[in-house]
Amino acid sequence: MNSSELWFTEYNSFSLDERTNGFCFKIKNHLASDKSNFQTLDIYETYEYGNVLVLDGVVMLTEKDEFVYHDMITHVPYQLLNYNDIQAENALVIGGGDGGTVRELLKYNSIKKIILCEIDDMVVNYSRKYFPKVSCGLDDPRVEVIIGDGIEFMKKQNNKFDIICIDSTDPIGPAVGLFNAEFYQNIYKALKEHGIVTSQQESYISGPQFVEKMNQMLSKIYPNVKFYKADISTYPTGTWCFVLASKKLNPLDCYRPDFTEKINFESKYYNSRIHQGAFALPTYINKILS
Amino acid sequence: MNSSELWFTEYNSFSLDERTNGFCFKIKNHLASDKSNFQTLDIYETYEYGNVLVLDGVVMLTEKDEFVYHDMITHVPYQLLNYNDIQAENALVIGGGDGGTVRELLKYNSIKKIILCEIDDMVVNYSRKYFPKVSCGLDDPRVEVIIGDGIEFMKKQNNKFDIICIDSTDPIGPAVGLFNAEFYQNIYKALKEHGIVTSQQESYISGPQFVEKMNQMLSKIYPNVKFYKADISTYPTGTWCFVLASKKLNPLDCYRPDFTEKINFESKYYNSRIHQGAFALPTYINKILS
Repeated sequence: MNSSELWFTEYNSFSLDERTNGFCFKIKNHLASDKSNFQTLDIYETYEYGNVLVLDGVVMLTEKDEFVYHDMITHVPYQLLNYNDIQAENALVIGGGDGGTVRELLKYNSIKKIILCEIDDMVVNYSRKYFPKVSCGLDDPRVEVIIGDGIEFMKKQNNKFDIICIDSTDPIGPAVGLFNAEFYQNIYKALKEHGIVTSQQESYISGPQFVEKMNQMLSKIYPNVKFYKADISTYPTGTWCFVLASKKLNPLDCYRPDFTEKINFESKYYNSRIHQGAFALPTYINKILS
Repeated sequence: MNSSELWFTEYNSFSLDERTNGFCFKIKNHLASDKSNFQTLDIYETYEYGNVLVLDGVVMLTEKDEFVYHDMITHVPYQLLNYNDIQAENALVIGGGDGGTVRELLKYNSIKKIILCEIDDMVVNYSRKYFPKVSCGLDDPRVEVIIGDGIEFMKKQNNKFDIICIDSTDPIGPAVGLFNAEFYQNIYKALKEHGIVTSQQESYISGPQFVEKMNQMLSKIYPNVKFYKADISTYPTGTWCFVLASKKLNPLDCYRPDFTEKINFESKYYNSRIHQGAFALPTYINKILS
């Protein structure tokens, strides 16, 4: 029998001011602990979820289930373009220093160039070391890694990208500016006329008021705004929300019966029914968003 | 500042032999603690989820999110019958002593009779006291509550029910017999020719091998077997699985574009897109089930 056990708990930050519920892992090893100008980083080895990346006390990814998040932030916009006979060529990832979003975009031969703009090189460096299956695409010749502020970067881009993925931390600390109107106006400017932006939007189960606020803000900038979801068991509530905003394409085109994904790789989560089902939200959330 | 804090943790029982991860609530009050011939019961008052019913250390329902489970175990089979122009009249609930499944079935005027067969009157009694908004339908004149063994009850039923909902605890302890072939053969016998059975099937994220085993067993008895899911944040992994098995009707008829739910009540979770989306499963689960 072990004389002591180490447990890590992430508390649901959206719930109430105080900590009232959370998700906990038993820890095999505390592999790394570090601090940058932006945030603290911990990497734990767990029993069921493999290595886990934690920033400022919040789980960012686990080896066991990172595929769900990275499938859904990339294949949903790419396949919607594909369905409309547009082959995406230029992609931008803001945040996403672990490399998972880049790895999925690289699966498409039509993609000629991916820029990754991550503010914190600490995330990139630790991901290369402890998450090689996530960061594996970062050295691909089609990828340019820029260590810098995504908010500043966005101010200078015009009519350039088919897909932009905002792969950010929660809207606290360094990521606050990735959830406001000015940033999304700059993204609008940076997208081609058929362009699509996707971003993570927390959990509507614990934070429906956040999703409501984001919907109001985004709907003033983009003609098409739809929230969608995925089952990510290590994020608070186990259901995670994304948004797809576009200048032109209707995200609900996936409800046409002839919608089928065109993929020539082994997907683990994403498929055309998952794509359609992801946009199906509970009635109480539909009311908030309508 | 409080001098002490009480926390309850449910460990994910499917993960490994030992406890490696879990979901925890901070407790305001420990409202009840009791023991029957079948199981132990605890009722906690929590900060975000209201009152929580726990049986043998496992969360059964919370006031905040019970509506998701009860919507999905009832409206999915009812609306599939409805879509096929069949108005369900006779329903049976095995387990479900809290009354939530009965409450949802009662929303349909076509339902003439609901039998609830619950093995443990302790669950019914505490639900009446601590979960009045869940148990509220148990005294409806259309409902007959039988305190008895659902397995024995099923042996004597023939060609009688339009819908049977197996609203059970996990496949450990008193509920083991609700997950085997003999039980599901008796249910087949008890259903009318268009009849549908639904039941809870744990989480495919933590227990894919369980879903695989159940699919193999059910497919030998029922021509139509499809798993579906819902987002229940207080069950392990936050994604919960159900199965719909029928003698005749195809569960995937919901993918026809003209599928719309016919409800004349205020739903909080269920709607036609949720119905369709619920049957959309990740690729790695589809492989296991095909």
